[in-house]
Amino acid sequence: MQTSSIKSFLRPQIDFLTVLGILGSFIFFLGFALLTPMIIALIYEEKVWHTFLSSASIAFVMGGSLYYFFKPEQELRIREGFLVVSLTWLFLSLVGALPFVISGILPSYTDAVFETMSGLSTTGATIFGGETSSGFMNPQIESLPMSMLFWRSMAHWLGGMGIIVLTLAILPLLGIGGMQLFQAESPGPTTDKLTPRVQETAKLLWGVYVAFTGIEFLLLWVHPSMDWFDALNHAFATLATGGFSTKNASIQAFDSVYIDSVITLFMFLAGISFAMHFRLLRGDTQSFFNNRETRFYTLITGISIVVVSASLWLFNEYSIGSALQYGAFQVVSIVTTTGFGTDDYELWYSFGSFFLFLLFFAGGCAGSTGGGPKMIRWMIIIRNSFREFKQIVHPKAVLPIRIGNKTIDADIQRTVLSFFALYLIVFGLGALVMATMGYDLESSIGASIACLGNIGPGWGEFGPTDNYAQIPYAGKWVLIFMMMVGRLEIFTVLLIFTPAFWKQ
Amino acid sequence: MQTSSIKSFLRPQIDFLTVLGILGSFIFFLGFALLTPMIIALIYEEKVWHTFLSSASIAFVMGGSLYYFFKPEQELRIREGFLVVSLTWLFLSLVGALPFVISGILPSYTDAVFETMSGLSTTGATIFGGETSSGFMNPQIESLPMSMLFWRSMAHWLGGMGIIVLTLAILPLLGIGGMQLFQAESPGPTTDKLTPRVQETAKLLWGVYVAFTGIEFLLLWVHPSMDWFDALNHAFATLATGGFSTKNASIQAFDSVYIDSVITLFMFLAGISFAMHFRLLRGDTQSFFNNRETRFYTLITGISIVVVSASLWLFNEYSIGSALQYGAFQVVSIVTTTGFGTDDYELWYSFGSFFLFLLFFAGGCAGSTGGGPKMIRWMIIIRNSFREFKQIVHPKAVLPIRIGNKTIDADIQRTVLSFFALYLIVFGLGALVMATMGYDLESSIGASIACLGNIGPGWGEFGPTDNYAQIPYAGKWVLIFMMMVGRLEIFTVLLIFTPAFWKQ
Ligand SMILES: [K+]
Ligand SMILES: [K+]
Repeated sequence: MQTSSIKSFLRPQIDFLTVLGILGSFIFFLGFALLTPMIIALIYEEKVWHTFLSSASIAFVMGGSLYYFFKPEQELRIREGFLVVSLTWLFLSLVGALPFVISGILPSYTDAVFETMSGLSTTGATIFGGETSSGFMNPQIESLPMSMLFWRSMAHWLGGMGIIVLTLAILPLLGIGGMQLFQAESPGPTTDKLTPRVQETAKLLWGVYVAFTGIEFLLLWVHPSMDWFDALNHAFATLATGGFSTKNASIQAFDSVYIDSVITLFMFLAGISFAMHFRLLRGDTQSFFNNRETRFYTLITGISIVVVSASLWLFNEYSIGSALQYGAFQVVSIVTTTGFGTDDYELWYSFGSFFLFLLFFAGGCAGSTGGGPKMIRWMIIIRNSFREFKQIVHPKAVLPIRIGNKTIDADIQRTVLSFFALYLIVFGLGALVMATMGYDLESSIGASIACLGNIGPGWGEFGPTDNYAQIPYAGKWVLIFMMMVGRLEIFTVLLIFTPAFWKQ
Repeated sequence: MQTSSIKSFLRPQIDFLTVLGILGSFIFFLGFALLTPMIIALIYEEKVWHTFLSSASIAFVMGGSLYYFFKPEQELRIREGFLVVSLTWLFLSLVGALPFVISGILPSYTDAVFETMSGLSTTGATIFGGETSSGFMNPQIESLPMSMLFWRSMAHWLGGMGIIVLTLAILPLLGIGGMQLFQAESPGPTTDKLTPRVQETAKLLWGVYVAFTGIEFLLLWVHPSMDWFDALNHAFATLATGGFSTKNASIQAFDSVYIDSVITLFMFLAGISFAMHFRLLRGDTQSFFNNRETRFYTLITGISIVVVSASLWLFNEYSIGSALQYGAFQVVSIVTTTGFGTDDYELWYSFGSFFLFLLFFAGGCAGSTGGGPKMIRWMIIIRNSFREFKQIVHPKAVLPIRIGNKTIDADIQRTVLSFFALYLIVFGLGALVMATMGYDLESSIGASIACLGNIGPGWGEFGPTDNYAQIPYAGKWVLIFMMMVGRLEIFTVLLIFTPAFWKQ
């Protein structure tokens, strides 16, 4: 018997040490990320530069030791894969929260983790600018050091990178929630081995992501009301469909048709699968424009813009131009789950307002940085309903579901429907927790869907002009959990809490 | 070729005349039903007695002619069955609304149809006691003639009878939304012919229904604050899980622990499948107590009573006794979709209130008179989620779902999940229509689920102390449609609007 076989034989069902080893490498990498805001701090002579250095050091030591001692020697197996994915977002939030606490900007570690998870999960719900349940007044966004603002945006951007790779390269292999559908569409080699495929795919897709970020940055920067810093932060937050802004009033602060248009366009692009963008940039226009999900997404977004703008024009007496500007921005912001704002949709006439509420359950395309249930699942749910009707009329027929020329097999149909049911159950339970803390129906529902769908702004006390500071700490941890659950396609995280996962 | 073969050959795909013939027989039967409130009117010397006679005459002439000219000669086929089922509720509402209009009590035919559909669908949403959009003040419930109150309750009772037969004898044969599951549980002969089986089953189940109504009537009547009239009306409305009361304040008007307890008990019983009651009365206690759906329903109701009562006790400072009395009543009223009230749940602390809101999506057992998605579907949805997690860990395993010792096959699983998705889509669109009319998020959601789930009272402007008078007429027709869609298990009605239904 060879040594590797013995090791393999002795290897436990779930090799926690290997999992820790991989998490270590991610934490180590986060150390480098933490040095970037430090550079910003040093350039702008902000005293907080050292908090980033300390945080980075902790990340290096912690991550480095974990990796050194538990260096993974074998391929990850499926259960370990789930643990790694779920714990990555949690551990990186726990470590990435350090600068806020070490600098003393946030006295509460809970708040710091909330803000970091909100960043990394591309949610964009903030606890800045409001009073916490312990009576501390968290600082206003505009009063934060530039380096801290940058760290928030960067968390978005890194989170977005993570999600692209996760949905297009890792989840399909793990078989989550119908994500197998996109395996074929991803660029890169199609090997069975996880690591080389993921690395190759990641490089190609991140190229597109970085390029788009660069272009948006330049387009924003040329406008006089945006300096390079605002432009870069908003480019980060847009491509990640994150939604953190450097202004308390979000994009409304810039009050510019040009800026609104650029951001609307890039939010829309960020809501399309990066695999599709990759193909388009390779010159494969046919794949891009024939992709059913992209077309459905465009259709739904287009119709929603028309409907919501019409409501603003007819019932809120906006001019046609303003109606389109604000309607389009808010629709795209919510459909893509970005959560930027240029208008308070809670003040709209109930029709436009409720229409937007329904879009909270949409989500962008799979393989984009958007959260929510996503367009492809809605397509399957809708097609399935029609099939169900057909089945009643022809009880014995075998009726397949097709999207484009692809047949969706029965397992994936069922998985997608299960995803939808589970999504709504988690949404309802999340809202119940908020109600336990004393929030009314609208606020409870709003906070729950805003966090689970990684949108950011919600409804009621958590509307687009509010923040999440006031929530009791226990509630914040529940929302932290919901952001994570939503971001990782529900099954990934919840699986870990089922007996099936732990059974031999 | 024989004559019958020629007829059969010439028979169109969907034989509308046969459908009309059957509807005629139902309308004719409704004529007899309309004579019952006339007797009440004659006894109590109410002037409106003639409106029931006129309405009955119209029903006799209309129903009689339809039946006479289009007398059905052949067995119904599947599509015709769907048309008959859907149109029965609609046509009977259109005709059953006549007394309200002929008497001049309701100047609006829309309001009259709303009230009648609300009766026949066992919803219990009322337009009495409020001002309509055209400025007319609809009379208070207490000012209505006894015969009119009786007609409302009787509509419930007849609707409940219809639903028991529909869900236990007809829908299983038509293959709607997983209802095939209950085919085996229904009493009566198991022939393939629709008519004899339905008639036999109906007789047996209605016996139970009538017996329970009688017992509740007696138990209520013995209490001094209820005369025979109130007792009978409330017994009708309870067994049908309807919710119309003879008092504007609903059951709260009687202010009695005894009455609350009796009604709570009978609402709970009405939420159990009448096939189960039938078995129990036959002495088959094992079937009854081993039935998984009945047990799940009891468990969910029990837990909910404890949770809601605890919330009332802890946060609303009710005494333990009152907390249980009001908590149990409201929980059972909502879970069974009855909609009777002894307390305004909108005034409760947010936790108890939101918990009750979640129960708006429960529904009683299949084969009961309750509306909503129903317990068996929730059981399948929950089991399916667990299976889905197991499937991720064992991607290649074939994992069945079992409820008790019954395996739920894949088609039924998918149908149940599709039902759930479609239910929520209809719910969302219904709420959107309400938002179009200017109602806020809570009221829109409330009215939509209250009508779709056949509950009655909703939220916001349609809470337990409000009514549906104020809604513009177009909105009332949408809600009439939603009560019908919800009552007939979604697929039955919507099917008629799909191309699949009309295609050769
Ligand atoms: K977001
Ligand atoms: K009801």
